[in-house]
Amino acid sequence: MTAYDPENIFAKILRGEIPSHKVYEDEHALAFMDVMPQGTGHTLIVPKAPSRNILDADPETLARVVPVVQKIAIAAKAAFEADGVTVIQFNEPASGQTIYHLHFHVIPRFDGMPLKPHSGVMEDQSVLASNAQKMRDALAV
Amino acid sequence: MTAYDPENIFAKILRGEIPSHKVYEDEHALAFMDVMPQGTGHTLIVPKAPSRNILDADPETLARVVPVVQKIAIAAKAAFEADGVTVIQFNEPASGQTIYHLHFHVIPRFDGMPLKPHSGVMEDQSVLASNAQKMRDALAV
Repeated sequence: MTAYDPENIFAKILRGEIPSHKVYEDEHALAFMDVMPQGTGHTLIVPKAPSRNILDADPETLARVVPVVQKIAIAAKAAFEADGVTVIQFNEPASGQTIYHLHFHVIPRFDGMPLKPHSGVMEDQSVLASNAQKMRDALAV
Repeated sequence: MTAYDPENIFAKILRGEIPSHKVYEDEHALAFMDVMPQGTGHTLIVPKAPSRNILDADPETLARVVPVVQKIAIAAKAAFEADGVTVIQFNEPASGQTIYHLHFHVIPRFDGMPLKPHSGVMEDQSVLASNAQKMRDALAV
């Protein structure tokens, strides 16, 4: 497997070199809005520890980040009054991975609405900011 | 959220009341082949502790089962010489959940091959048995 590249976008977000719409942060993980959402409220969770994906991650890191994935899934369902939540984690290009820092997708789901394809179109910054606020509000309850 | 129903299929598999093509078991989790695979080697990981999905799971349970998901993802990539691996976890019907015991899907992926839709067609038992053996062999390395 290709080695971890510390110049990937999520590493830059973790180092504060590029901005993101943050919704949650603790010692082990950061959660922020996906800028090309496949549905309203699509949020990403990344561990702070570097790994390319699940295949080379430290099991300790996984054990610490997945409770954060759960916290975000519960908050996302509440924040957007969703009917369900999809959690996806891609490994390597054949799976659809495009950024090579381990991340989990949390996507609120609504009855009868399929996931949008990964369009490559950036969501409006104002929409992302508003959705991030909804998530922070839901997490504060 | 609807309460956990101990008569779901995965609970029955965990109790040994119905058969499955097992690939891995430890104190906290069981892994077995999906009988309606969305790709060759599609494997499911279920915690032994009851929960409907990630929304009501004990965070401790998650912390223990996800390192098993990782182990299965690594083995599945090796067993089927896959190019990548997709990990998916569905919560509630709007997300595509059909069996209400928390489970993670691990699906080996191959360059240029999209995921098959959930067809509802049972895979041949001989194919499932052979794939389970490949997984057990990969886990034994």
